[in-house]
Amino acid sequence: MNMVPTPNTFCLVKGAGEARTRLNAFDKALLAAGIGDTNIVRMSSIVPPSARRVDTVDLPKGGLIPTAYAHIDSETSGEIISAAVAVALPEDPSLPGVIMEHEDTQPLSVVENKVRQMAEDAFTYRNRTLKDLFSIGIEYQVNKCGAVFAGAVLWYE
Amino acid sequence: MNMVPTPNTFCLVKGAGEARTRLNAFDKALLAAGIGDTNIVRMSSIVPPSARRVDTVDLPKGGLIPTAYAHIDSETSGEIISAAVAVALPEDPSLPGVIMEHEDTQPLSVVENKVRQMAEDAFTYRNRTLKDLFSIGIEYQVNKCGAVFAGAVLWYE
Amino acid sequence: MNMVPTPNTFCLVKGAGEARTRLNAFDKALLAAGIGDTNIVRMSSIVPPSARRVDTVDLPKGGLIPTAYAHIDSETSGEIISAAVAVALPEDPSLPGVIMEHEDTQPLSVVENKVRQMAEDAFTYRNRTLKDLFSIGIEYQVNKCGAVFAGAVLWYE
Repeated sequence: MNMVPTPNTFCLVKGAGEARTRLNAFDKALLAAGIGDTNIVRMSSIVPPSARRVDTVDLPKGGLIPTAYAHIDSETSGEIISAAVAVALPEDPSLPGVIMEHEDTQPLSVVENKVRQMAEDAFTYRNRTLKDLFSIGIEYQVNKCGAVFAGAVLWYE
Repeated sequence: MNMVPTPNTFCLVKGAGEARTRLNAFDKALLAAGIGDTNIVRMSSIVPPSARRVDTVDLPKGGLIPTAYAHIDSETSGEIISAAVAVALPEDPSLPGVIMEHEDTQPLSVVENKVRQMAEDAFTYRNRTLKDLFSIGIEYQVNKCGAVFAGAVLWYE
Repeated sequence: MNMVPTPNTFCLVKGAGEARTRLNAFDKALLAAGIGDTNIVRMSSIVPPSARRVDTVDLPKGGLIPTAYAHIDSETSGEIISAAVAVALPEDPSLPGVIMEHEDTQPLSVVENKVRQMAEDAFTYRNRTLKDLFSIGIEYQVNKCGAVFAGAVLWYE
């Protein structure tokens, strides 16, 4: 058996960006989040069993980085945009955790409360006992063209 | 040369879920499909040559799982939603197969017939002789917030 | 440390397709681009440091291929659709390059000029000195159901 190894760490990151196009604003938000010079590969949204939370992660430039993320952009001047992710971790370290993502044109408090509830719900219907619930998010008021990003990066140590 | 190994098995899965948010409903559909505690990575949509169909697959929890899939969610009470994938396999085992995905607010019969035709078309314009055509799908009537998922998981043995 | 290796080559590809469904048209565009029998995995959008540009790439059939891409489809007869990607490479070979993607119902000249500007902007706000700027794109006039694709494939040598 020969496969992609399962990651064993996760890191929560966030950023906002303003640029001349939506994609550049997203790129600047990734740079602000500290992962702008990597290739993020979107995935749904599980923390491998016993994966360790790290505060910073040293990613290879141009590396392929599995990431669960929320993002939203807007070209409406003055609009509030927010993105957040929540991570629920189980009592039983042999079981996986769950990552949930949410974004909206709402204050961060609204978006982050909702994504935390979503992660709790994901444990409830799994009949899994919650040990820790982390979240990270960011709110931004658009000038001309802005984007926000919040993500859980999976990696290796 | 150093790369991600090409998978050599595929497994067809399906599920439906109902929850308080669209993302949680999708998550429950993945759980119902048996892949809810993995990280699915979406890809377009080829069965590697000679890959073997398996009825069940033992995936690592939190693993990175390449998957071609159809999905749809709805918050319209009473609405019918369906998702299906079809897999066309060739006579010549040195050639790849094709996976097609389709989803709609239609009965499964409509969606599954269409996705099978799409897979046949993909062989026609490849000038590839069809040996087998498999499909899997699911139909669900939404209560308040529902999702359906059908996918072809690629993995290793 | 055990992970997906970072690619060390990139290849620019493009194609257009016409078919009975949008997904089949996309599939035909991938075939025209020479990557139609692989599993492309979408990523954001960095060229690893010192990665070498190659004119053609021999990909494993059904392999998992990290790709940054633009695509657009249309079922409006007579409509013009264009997709393009641009790659900015740095003077300093220890730094990564940036890939930008853009698509629109506009002539290719408009879309390709814009994506080149986006890649230049990505270097400006990185304070990175530009050495080379490549781009590739494709324009197509839809008959009944068409798609265009332009991408930067990352791979290994």
